[in-house]
Amino acid sequence: MRKVASGFSPMIAVDRKATKPLHKQIYDAFRAMIVGRSLDSGQQVPSTRALAAELRISRIPVLTAYAQLLAEGYFEARVGAGTFICSSLPEQMTSSARRATSTAQVRSGSRPVARRTMLLPPYETFPWVRGFGAFSVSHPAFDQFPFKVWSSIVMRHCRSPQPTALQYGGPMGIEPLREAICTYLRTARAVHCDPNQIMIVTGSQQALEISARVLLDVGSPVWVEEPGYWLTRHVLTAAGCRLIPVKVDTEGMDVAAGIKLCRKARAVYVAPSHQYPLGATMSASRRLQLLDWVQSSGSWIIEDDYDSEYRYGSMPIASLQGLDNHSRVIYIGTFSKTLFPSLRLGYMVIPPDLVDRFAAVRHAADIGPPYFYQAVVTDFINDGHFGRHIRRMRLLYGQRRTALVECLRKEFGSTLDVLGAEAGMHLAVTLPPGFRDQELATRAAREKLWLWPLSPCYLGETSRQGFILGFGSTKETEIPNAVRQLKGLLMGRTVGLKMSI
Amino acid sequence: MRKVASGFSPMIAVDRKATKPLHKQIYDAFRAMIVGRSLDSGQQVPSTRALAAELRISRIPVLTAYAQLLAEGYFEARVGAGTFICSSLPEQMTSSARRATSTAQVRSGSRPVARRTMLLPPYETFPWVRGFGAFSVSHPAFDQFPFKVWSSIVMRHCRSPQPTALQYGGPMGIEPLREAICTYLRTARAVHCDPNQIMIVTGSQQALEISARVLLDVGSPVWVEEPGYWLTRHVLTAAGCRLIPVKVDTEGMDVAAGIKLCRKARAVYVAPSHQYPLGATMSASRRLQLLDWVQSSGSWIIEDDYDSEYRYGSMPIASLQGLDNHSRVIYIGTFSKTLFPSLRLGYMVIPPDLVDRFAAVRHAADIGPPYFYQAVVTDFINDGHFGRHIRRMRLLYGQRRTALVECLRKEFGSTLDVLGAEAGMHLAVTLPPGFRDQELATRAAREKLWLWPLSPCYLGETSRQGFILGFGSTKETEIPNAVRQLKGLLMGRTVGLKMSI
Repeated sequence: MRKVASGFSPMIAVDRKATKPLHKQIYDAFRAMIVGRSLDSGQQVPSTRALAAELRISRIPVLTAYAQLLAEGYFEARVGAGTFICSSLPEQMTSSARRATSTAQVRSGSRPVARRTMLLPPYETFPWVRGFGAFSVSHPAFDQFPFKVWSSIVMRHCRSPQPTALQYGGPMGIEPLREAICTYLRTARAVHCDPNQIMIVTGSQQALEISARVLLDVGSPVWVEEPGYWLTRHVLTAAGCRLIPVKVDTEGMDVAAGIKLCRKARAVYVAPSHQYPLGATMSASRRLQLLDWVQSSGSWIIEDDYDSEYRYGSMPIASLQGLDNHSRVIYIGTFSKTLFPSLRLGYMVIPPDLVDRFAAVRHAADIGPPYFYQAVVTDFINDGHFGRHIRRMRLLYGQRRTALVECLRKEFGSTLDVLGAEAGMHLAVTLPPGFRDQELATRAAREKLWLWPLSPCYLGETSRQGFILGFGSTKETEIPNAVRQLKGLLMGRTVGLKMSI
Repeated sequence: MRKVASGFSPMIAVDRKATKPLHKQIYDAFRAMIVGRSLDSGQQVPSTRALAAELRISRIPVLTAYAQLLAEGYFEARVGAGTFICSSLPEQMTSSARRATSTAQVRSGSRPVARRTMLLPPYETFPWVRGFGAFSVSHPAFDQFPFKVWSSIVMRHCRSPQPTALQYGGPMGIEPLREAICTYLRTARAVHCDPNQIMIVTGSQQALEISARVLLDVGSPVWVEEPGYWLTRHVLTAAGCRLIPVKVDTEGMDVAAGIKLCRKARAVYVAPSHQYPLGATMSASRRLQLLDWVQSSGSWIIEDDYDSEYRYGSMPIASLQGLDNHSRVIYIGTFSKTLFPSLRLGYMVIPPDLVDRFAAVRHAADIGPPYFYQAVVTDFINDGHFGRHIRRMRLLYGQRRTALVECLRKEFGSTLDVLGAEAGMHLAVTLPPGFRDQELATRAAREKLWLWPLSPCYLGETSRQGFILGFGSTKETEIPNAVRQLKGLLMGRTVGLKMSI
């Protein structure tokens, strides 16, 4: 039996001066709420004693009303448990009322909504994002997360919380976590920062959203990577900005092309460590070129460093923020890839002169982050578990990535281009002409193969067809089969086409 | 000793082809990071073995570099623990570098920010919101929260989480919690709803923010209560709306006055169950008048039902949403008062035709709520703890409120007007002429008496002076002393004034 939320006092008003007797008032109120579906089948009702106390009346009329409701089958008594709304109410009784309710909720007249909101595409769940299994994108290796350690920290904080831990906090997040993140970013990402520049957010998405609020006006031109991350575009679109797609090559965003397209952009969104989706790492010369441009044009850089912790082939490269001498970079990082996404915890490093503006905007948006997991993550970092987990995962993901690249080479030779495998938890493959990635991804999802199509990442019309393949949660032993499955899918598609895969 | 986050791999790049020997490269890199304060005193560095593996070089040059850094006092070895950045580095070494860093972070050139953001007042912490103690506003009785039960639910969910519990969720929140809230709202608040109309948010503030996004354009006129809740105004101001302050009397917002001021407002923000700060409950006739107006003018109602669970003197009154036959109400509720504020969990009920728009806007804003506490609260509700906790607190707060009202009468007679004590966790008192509430509140905070001044709640120029007194976390036994303390404060102020308190 489905568990039904219970134990609330139903909203019943009795009038002691009315001519209708009290027991009849109570009976009618319950009956109306049951027929009108305000009360669910199987839901517990208060005891007669509790309801009488609540209504400030004697228990007698309540007993009378309950007896009648039981007799007529609206209520049922369960021995030792209490009184419940009958779990087998006739369907027609409640469904007719349901129809009545929907008709009653007439939606007539003018219903104006915000114009800018209408620019935003509807929220959709595409078939390829639903599943857990081979090639799922942005899934870390959940089974490798040290939940034992995590639980013990959770428990430590849960036992006897202080009032300060339960009350509203500030918009920047708790101090100890900001200090821990500051140390981490200085050490491992060469970010120039102080704890008071760090804001704890609910993830990269909120960081981007707050940045857009503070920095961008309606109509502000903003460079975005082409192809690029679709959710970034949603934020910028909803902010009313003018998106300037700037093409990405093996050195990352083509800064010269951006300058040619729009020299006076207000800001640029860029993921220099591991561009999404093509995976390029921005070269040092492009980085300096970008920093020069923003300083001369009075623009801002929003640097999304979403999975730079996992870097395989080459030496780590300092963040753009760390190279910037003019405080023009808003640096964004997240725990979604290093811990897990449902935590909804990330951070941003704000230029010192903008901290107050960011704090005001964030406070108005949602007051501040929840306390509890901030405290847990602080201990997880300070006790050394975070550094250890990253090192372990870098090794593991490195192996999975090597296995995947080798398998792709073996099965496809040079037919598929493999891109962006130097870092992160995903790589990209591009398809030869004649393939439609979205169609194939939809088909693959039916076979429980989770391919994210490349073409929706393009704003412009000339898009490449291909897939983003996640390997964070794809075990090394699963990879050969999954790659063969991918091959089968592509072979099936090529019937009638002269392709040699 | 302060705990320092540790165990991250420092960002060191070595070049095997360079003429500078490897050990010198490593020594220089560490020295630069220490002097430049990228590495903190007391922070652990990786073992020589781990660093050599990371850099893909032999261990010899790493050992040589470490030996030199130890000899020169940059590193210190702690037996059995590892190697650390020396915890007693000379101050001038790092402070001179600090100055160098700040000068390097030149903030020159044009630094444009969003125009609308500049309308938002800076985030400030006023002296009276800081403390825990008598009259703290919006503090529930933290010591009465059933943490034992809560911890056991937390533990149950923490032990072996499923991948679905760790992955990104949808923008509406998890289904079981939406079902539980739906049952609660139908039963206890007479809200007309279906689980698919319910969105889980991080609190009333986010609900309001998302509503503003979806419903309001720049320049949209919006009725707000005068006096009213200041954070509401921040959201509407940041959204670029035109605020129309509509006066509040003992029957709640004066709808006729609103129509006179601005018949064509796009929306109205209202807290009909317990208006903030004056505490009026909107009368039935005003409710119907408001619903009539929104239907005829094509406007929206944003109903903030922030603490209606606690209602003392009179019978519960159905929510505005429950009276509305045209789906023109966005209903907002929160767990900040019924559970605790740092949870950051609330909910809203969205008109069916707007659910998709709200989902799209929320997804772009922060993807969705964190998973974990949604699951915990679901169980807390479904196991009956929520209903029980509310009933216990209603009784407790009712006693505290009666004690406070009686004490105020006893000490002040009719000199102070007591308003809005029929519901919630706070009441308001207004001061006779000649008193300045903000000045007094600042002084009171020094004596650990937490009075929220009334005057900042007014948008217009004619504001009443007074205080909002919270009694949620003020024990009955503390009340007499706290009221006498308040009297002392006011007496002190009246020296030289002919007042008879």
